[in-house]
Amino acid sequence: IFPAFSSTSSKSIRSRSMVVKAEGAQAINPEIRKTEDKVVDSVVVSELSKPLTPYCRCWRSGTFPLCDGSHVKHNKATGDNVGPLLLKRQ
Amino acid sequence: IFPAFSSTSSKSIRSRSMVVKAEGAQAINPEIRKTEDKVVDSVVVSELSKPLTPYCRCWRSGTFPLCDGSHVKHNKATGDNVGPLLLKRQ
Ligand code: FES
Ligand code: FES
Repeated sequence: IFPAFSSTSSKSIRSRSMVVKAEGAQAINPEIRKTEDKVVDSVVVSELSKPLTPYCRCWRSGTFPLCDGSHVKHNKATGDNVGPLLLKRQ
Repeated sequence: IFPAFSSTSSKSIRSRSMVVKAEGAQAINPEIRKTEDKVVDSVVVSELSKPLTPYCRCWRSGTFPLCDGSHVKHNKATGDNVGPLLLKRQ
């Protein structure tokens, strides 16, 4: 669940330094439905109620699987460039 | 674009240790269309050709915005639990 870290403590009493390296890939979903092995959602497209419905791909939405605009904050905080999938009825 | 790091070099000549802390949030899209400010895709649902079409939410698909199953490798490598959005015609 958490990023892999390697840490090496100095053997010297004098030095309290510790080397910590972030290794390998990181999870992209910090919070959503973490009790599920895999978060998959289905949309029956004939049941879409609005002409345009944005679905979240940033894993930060408070209304997941819908997009609530949280990708904007995520992009600003990280320099990322993610955005929603827009479902269009016509 | 890159994660924020703070690094502190030891002042002591004897110690070559360096403290490196990963700080704050990380980008979730490492490679896809990084020249775009925000990657947004649209699906006109009346044009879906198959009964079931999976769309990627892991940002690792070789056929983005479609899912190619790459979320499986991502989940195994990181302990994450992300998966696609399934668009169903009926
Ligand atoms: S809130 Fe996640 S893509 Fe908009
Ligand atoms: S390849 Fe990204 S969700 Fe399947």
